[in-house]
Amino acid sequence: MVEEGESKKAAKKEAKKAEKAAKKAEHKATNPSETPTSASEEVDVSKGKYGNLPMIQSDPTAPKLTFTYIKDLNESLQGQNVWVRARLHTSRARGKQCFIILRQREFTVQVLVNVSETVSKAMVKFSSNVSKESIIDVAAKVAKVPSAVAGCSQSDVELVASELWVVSASMPQLPLQIEDASRPEKPGEEDSLNIKVNQDTRLDNRFLDLRTATNQAIFRLEAGVCKLFRDSLTNKGFVEIHTPKIISAASEGGANVFTVSYFKSSAYLAQSPQLYKQMAIAADFDKVYTIGAVFRAEDSNTHRHLTEFTGLDLEMAFQHHYHEVMLTIGNLFTEIFKGLRDQYSKEISLVNQQYPAEPFTFLEPPLVLQYQNARKMLKEHGVEIGEEEDLSTPVEKLLGRIVKAKYDTDFYILDKYPLAVRPFYTMPDPQNPKSSNSYDMFMRGEEILSGAQRIHDPKFLTERAKHHGIDVTKIASYIEAFKYGCPPHAGGGIGLERVVMLYLGLDNVRKTSMFPRDPKRVTP
Amino acid sequence: MVEEGESKKAAKKEAKKAEKAAKKAEHKATNPSETPTSASEEVDVSKGKYGNLPMIQSDPTAPKLTFTYIKDLNESLQGQNVWVRARLHTSRARGKQCFIILRQREFTVQVLVNVSETVSKAMVKFSSNVSKESIIDVAAKVAKVPSAVAGCSQSDVELVASELWVVSASMPQLPLQIEDASRPEKPGEEDSLNIKVNQDTRLDNRFLDLRTATNQAIFRLEAGVCKLFRDSLTNKGFVEIHTPKIISAASEGGANVFTVSYFKSSAYLAQSPQLYKQMAIAADFDKVYTIGAVFRAEDSNTHRHLTEFTGLDLEMAFQHHYHEVMLTIGNLFTEIFKGLRDQYSKEISLVNQQYPAEPFTFLEPPLVLQYQNARKMLKEHGVEIGEEEDLSTPVEKLLGRIVKAKYDTDFYILDKYPLAVRPFYTMPDPQNPKSSNSYDMFMRGEEILSGAQRIHDPKFLTERAKHHGIDVTKIASYIEAFKYGCPPHAGGGIGLERVVMLYLGLDNVRKTSMFPRDPKRVTP
Repeated sequence: MVEEGESKKAAKKEAKKAEKAAKKAEHKATNPSETPTSASEEVDVSKGKYGNLPMIQSDPTAPKLTFTYIKDLNESLQGQNVWVRARLHTSRARGKQCFIILRQREFTVQVLVNVSETVSKAMVKFSSNVSKESIIDVAAKVAKVPSAVAGCSQSDVELVASELWVVSASMPQLPLQIEDASRPEKPGEEDSLNIKVNQDTRLDNRFLDLRTATNQAIFRLEAGVCKLFRDSLTNKGFVEIHTPKIISAASEGGANVFTVSYFKSSAYLAQSPQLYKQMAIAADFDKVYTIGAVFRAEDSNTHRHLTEFTGLDLEMAFQHHYHEVMLTIGNLFTEIFKGLRDQYSKEISLVNQQYPAEPFTFLEPPLVLQYQNARKMLKEHGVEIGEEEDLSTPVEKLLGRIVKAKYDTDFYILDKYPLAVRPFYTMPDPQNPKSSNSYDMFMRGEEILSGAQRIHDPKFLTERAKHHGIDVTKIASYIEAFKYGCPPHAGGGIGLERVVMLYLGLDNVRKTSMFPRDPKRVTP
Repeated sequence: MVEEGESKKAAKKEAKKAEKAAKKAEHKATNPSETPTSASEEVDVSKGKYGNLPMIQSDPTAPKLTFTYIKDLNESLQGQNVWVRARLHTSRARGKQCFIILRQREFTVQVLVNVSETVSKAMVKFSSNVSKESIIDVAAKVAKVPSAVAGCSQSDVELVASELWVVSASMPQLPLQIEDASRPEKPGEEDSLNIKVNQDTRLDNRFLDLRTATNQAIFRLEAGVCKLFRDSLTNKGFVEIHTPKIISAASEGGANVFTVSYFKSSAYLAQSPQLYKQMAIAADFDKVYTIGAVFRAEDSNTHRHLTEFTGLDLEMAFQHHYHEVMLTIGNLFTEIFKGLRDQYSKEISLVNQQYPAEPFTFLEPPLVLQYQNARKMLKEHGVEIGEEEDLSTPVEKLLGRIVKAKYDTDFYILDKYPLAVRPFYTMPDPQNPKSSNSYDMFMRGEEILSGAQRIHDPKFLTERAKHHGIDVTKIASYIEAFKYGCPPHAGGGIGLERVVMLYLGLDNVRKTSMFPRDPKRVTP
């Protein structure tokens, strides 16, 4: 309901329209009998001003109220009548008054339902019985408050209600409380009053959990990462492609793939769009990217593994050196980080309120470290890594801390991995047979991109596959793609959820996947 | 290799740099023995000026030539020396000359390798033996031609070669000829000289087939549809989300779903992101869209069915009437059509050269037809459809022709479908119990979007599911999402490949899916 980019002027205009509409409009209750009538003999002065609305079924004869957004409610509307449609966040009755907090995403405002000449006790009682999370329509006058309303985003005004209608009622028993789900996590404050919602309860009831201001911000920022990724690559001449998820053969030996029954046969779910990106390069698309689901049948139950995640993949032909591609990707990350910092500061700050984290730092241009130099840095810190050995996750994290201390950057590129630890299609280093033209990229010490120059020569690719003990008949169609002329090329794949998790300094990738999938979870 | 938006000025500058580079640079052949030496006793004056380059392995000591793009070659570069890296499209030897056509996507230029003081017979022979589709580097002088070069996009100049190096050799036997795959389809011209490439050969060798100018244009335009879809919705306040493809239960009764083995259990591939879009609405995201793979296990082998396609889905909360959403979608299509017309005219024209079609017409705002009025129009044309009957595909096509003749539009919205033909979650019409708040949208008489107001009231949803004979225990988690307050909402899903097919007037959805999947095809 909250629309972006609306000016105050427009808001005022709308409020005036709403005032007129409020005068004309008359909400019709479906079941007038359901409207609580006062048990006493008093006439209900509020009759027809509260109750349960009929289900909105797009009745063309129903009145068309104009609603004001909570974010636009402030002192400038003092004395005006408005209609607001929002969720009942919390309410408390106190004698002849009922205080309600209305919520639209991260925006909240206080409503006062107060017994008066036009508001009956019955209406106050009805209002105080509306269950939390119900969506309600409220007609009210905007009133300045003498002192700021604590805990509301709109703290300089409150709404004095004249009508209150339930649009969509919530069950009274909520599986989780939005307030609990929104409570800040302060390290060291583990006392019993600090009720939190555990992760499975959150995920089982994701349609509720996602209503918190933090989750609204996380997924707006996630959409932002995709937008910045696409806009940056589009400006660089990349073309978006769509690659199939159902594939006939498991490309890298068949481990960790999900099997699909496909009519009378079977197929697999793609672990990456790599083959297809490379075919697009062999087909002269020159620079391509794709955003889509990627599947890994790994039985890994860690903070950073999902069985299905969103891959941001790109591939690019180059002229002379794969660094043309590596630096394009590095520059892409710089543009994403700058875009997030400049355009999503509100979202970052909302998330930080619940999950405090150090601001994400980066250098421009990004730091590029050689693998062998990283080994030396690790050795200076007492960790010895063999010349042809890969980095374990804890060692990657240590390296991240060393790099952060030395260069003050949370992002860097690690170039020239040992050939032995990379897939068969990785191009060896022309000057050092133990090294390769490959790179990983890191955020806060965790890998978020793996990439390389791929071998574009079919004979050499076959030779390398054999060296890795791969049955070349099984990858014949992959090799085929390079037999009819293919430019040298390189690329990489990024895990969206990891990027968002690490950018925001969150502790679990399930916080940045809207409906996460892991070995134990395929619902909701 | 072709970069967009480069000015002529930049091209000239580059050409000058290239000239300098050309003077300095010396390409090194890996196997000088492979360089054909003249059988005669003559000294090869071109020695070191042609041959097979070593595989580009990102050697930092290799010369860094600056290449000129074919699209930038024109009379203004007359007399300048340039380097070009491109595919050898065709070549023919004629005595002491070899004519080569170089290709970069849709751009082509003629190269002359001519025996001279600096070009040996051996070099001409080598050049004429380079197989089609190989990628080569050519050093050449730009020369104006007295009469236009037929069949080349750059018709006012040719290149007079001084060096020629093979960067990536193609196998000499091609599974299909790019020329054949590019040949225009003119109705009625089915003679034997008119060699065409059949669809399976194309799809089996997609990395070759995609090299045609037509295919380059189709997939650039397809990327354009996605960009226009996203940009339009982002401007309207929509948020992009990502929904899981692996789901625990088949949402609509279990027909037509693919089963996935999921660790020790099994799961399904999502037929649509609808449940997840709706949960996002129940979770206050207000307006959402998602682009992703959608799976249908239908054994339909038609021109418009795929088992995996790209879904453009959106869902939106509304205030009073689902037409708020329907017209938002209508307006979205107008913006897409205008964007294609204005920004992709070159691509449309390239596709039309091979596959002629009438330009796509649309009205602004779009035409909205009532289902019952469409029935009347059909009746006037002799086709009777029952009040609660659906339209068959041939009837939809007839209706498209009637609408086109009457309103001159290839796009329209058909509103208020009979309730009986829509899924259980469709909101009935409040004024006519046989009708519903649902709509389809059509392009050139074929359905490309299906949408509706969804029932947001859990009790009524349960009632309607029971009415449809659905076991409500199986959709309990779907119904659950609406129990804690949900705004009224509507949405729809669009098949990307169909939109592109119908916009361009193509005859098969396999032409607009880069790597199509159907009951008989899961490769490449």
